[in-house]
Amino acid sequence: MRGAVLHGPGDVRVEDREDPRIVAPTDAIIRLSATCVCGSDLWPYRGIEKIDGPAPMGHEYVGVVEEVGSDVRDVRPGQFVVGSFFASDNTCEICRAGYQSSCIHREGIGALGAQARYLRVPLADGTLVATPDVPSDDLIPGFLAASDVLGTGWFAAVAAEARPGKTVAVVGDGAVGLLGVLAAKQLGAERIIAMSRHEPRQKLALDYGATDIVTERGDDGVARIKDLTNGLGAHSVIEAVGTQESMMQAIRATRPGGHVGYVGVAHDVQLPGEELFFSHVHLHGGPAPVRRFLPDLIALIWNRQIDPGRVFDLSLPLEQAAGGYKAMDERRAIKVLLQP
Amino acid sequence: MRGAVLHGPGDVRVEDREDPRIVAPTDAIIRLSATCVCGSDLWPYRGIEKIDGPAPMGHEYVGVVEEVGSDVRDVRPGQFVVGSFFASDNTCEICRAGYQSSCIHREGIGALGAQARYLRVPLADGTLVATPDVPSDDLIPGFLAASDVLGTGWFAAVAAEARPGKTVAVVGDGAVGLLGVLAAKQLGAERIIAMSRHEPRQKLALDYGATDIVTERGDDGVARIKDLTNGLGAHSVIEAVGTQESMMQAIRATRPGGHVGYVGVAHDVQLPGEELFFSHVHLHGGPAPVRRFLPDLIALIWNRQIDPGRVFDLSLPLEQAAGGYKAMDERRAIKVLLQP
Repeated sequence: MRGAVLHGPGDVRVEDREDPRIVAPTDAIIRLSATCVCGSDLWPYRGIEKIDGPAPMGHEYVGVVEEVGSDVRDVRPGQFVVGSFFASDNTCEICRAGYQSSCIHREGIGALGAQARYLRVPLADGTLVATPDVPSDDLIPGFLAASDVLGTGWFAAVAAEARPGKTVAVVGDGAVGLLGVLAAKQLGAERIIAMSRHEPRQKLALDYGATDIVTERGDDGVARIKDLTNGLGAHSVIEAVGTQESMMQAIRATRPGGHVGYVGVAHDVQLPGEELFFSHVHLHGGPAPVRRFLPDLIALIWNRQIDPGRVFDLSLPLEQAAGGYKAMDERRAIKVLLQP
Repeated sequence: MRGAVLHGPGDVRVEDREDPRIVAPTDAIIRLSATCVCGSDLWPYRGIEKIDGPAPMGHEYVGVVEEVGSDVRDVRPGQFVVGSFFASDNTCEICRAGYQSSCIHREGIGALGAQARYLRVPLADGTLVATPDVPSDDLIPGFLAASDVLGTGWFAAVAAEARPGKTVAVVGDGAVGLLGVLAAKQLGAERIIAMSRHEPRQKLALDYGATDIVTERGDDGVARIKDLTNGLGAHSVIEAVGTQESMMQAIRATRPGGHVGYVGVAHDVQLPGEELFFSHVHLHGGPAPVRRFLPDLIALIWNRQIDPGRVFDLSLPLEQAAGGYKAMDERRAIKVLLQP
């Protein structure tokens, strides 16, 4: 089959890879309907995260089940399914507490390479959630978003305790940040401040429910958030970047007793203990347990109550994956869908 | 009046200080019934926190109201009152959310020097809570504990979400850690693991409700906590020390999705962002909003349902404050009460 492989910084190639097959009796093989490039794929693409030799890429996927292992009970061939970037048993104590991305049996999908025509999904029953029926094509981008960026933005909004009466600020205008805006709106937040200086992203943020746009960054951005919140800071801040600057911006924009939900993968970030101590914020985040939210997100998309697929502003054949990485790296595209 | 003043590392002197008097119409003057030495007083005593010239010491206090300013409405002369280390208006939006120690009008008591015979308390109505009547002498140590260490241990247990069904681990066997054990017990925690290698402190922890004692520290301590929790870590961890080692011990001893409540003042602590991200813990703490808990804590002490005063294992006349600091610095005493 064809699949995207990263050979080194800036060097993504679509090449022949071995077709995946059932390895464990809990596996499923799915034929991908769509896959995509993630903001986190840019870390190794930019050489910030090191890779050990050629690495199959991709961890976001939706598709139709082709085959299942002998121990798979709930997932059946022919179903249209949505999964996420960590396979999970969904039965251990950690999963039952809602942290499937830290499942004691978790397996990363990234190493299996979802930017391809087929994908082996471990722990299929615990990982995959079927849609009510095979969806029409126009819903596929939305379900693909649920696989990572929507689930991640949703987790950030939940971790930040977005809810009625709250002012939520969102640091980061990538797909996760924008869908954090959508999540905050769905969770009932009263006021949603999107931090963005890019006009098309500002527009999508407003469409998704943002009430205010702040273009300043860093300390100036913090000062603007305080101006908008009676000098106190936001109740809830979603951090969807993962740099030292963005983390400190999020912490400093939050009022004492408020909540920071952080989902940008923290690279070279060191949080100063004393400042954090006196900030009085709640800090929670990490790799989103997307599986916790999938059933609800699938229902919202199926019923057309939300349209998270709008974050895909470029769609390319899988063969042109390299161009998709380049467009995201240069911020010409918010998020690139790949057609296998 | 007589009061303790720190002149430099290791140099505490009790000397004549000016009697405090009403400065703002919201002030009260109280005649102290008891005061004490705090673990956090040891940071400047040890020279780790710098002081600018001679510094009056102490921020824990209970006593009888002598005089109130013209705008004080609720607090009256003759009442026995308990306060805490930050004066707060108890009416601003931050106070109403339960974060009185970040009140927009907060004033630190430390700079006023509560290790003395009299104390001026700013924002008296928002800061002081009266007991039902003047208490008998044997209750005074308990009320004094409520002023800081009990309120702080309680906040840590609340921040760590100690409650029925939860396993709570406590890092730190000072007065705050021991009272964190007491708080976790009162909040209904199922299992409470105290981390201590000091026999008298272990004994008090057990009396306060600890079910297990772990003597190992650092990574070995983390491994023991995991042994005791099915390999997963505790649901809730109270951090009551404030060093890099203790913070990392707390974070690593917590299961994914669990809660760290940290109240040790973080000195020279840097939290690695990537490890925190993948730990999946909730992190919350800071200077305890003791005022939030005072009414409930006063009721528990008044009704003799808890006996937090047992953390005072040495009681000295104020004139011997220097000996009190020395005993705590050398860990010969858990906490030293000073009689003004």
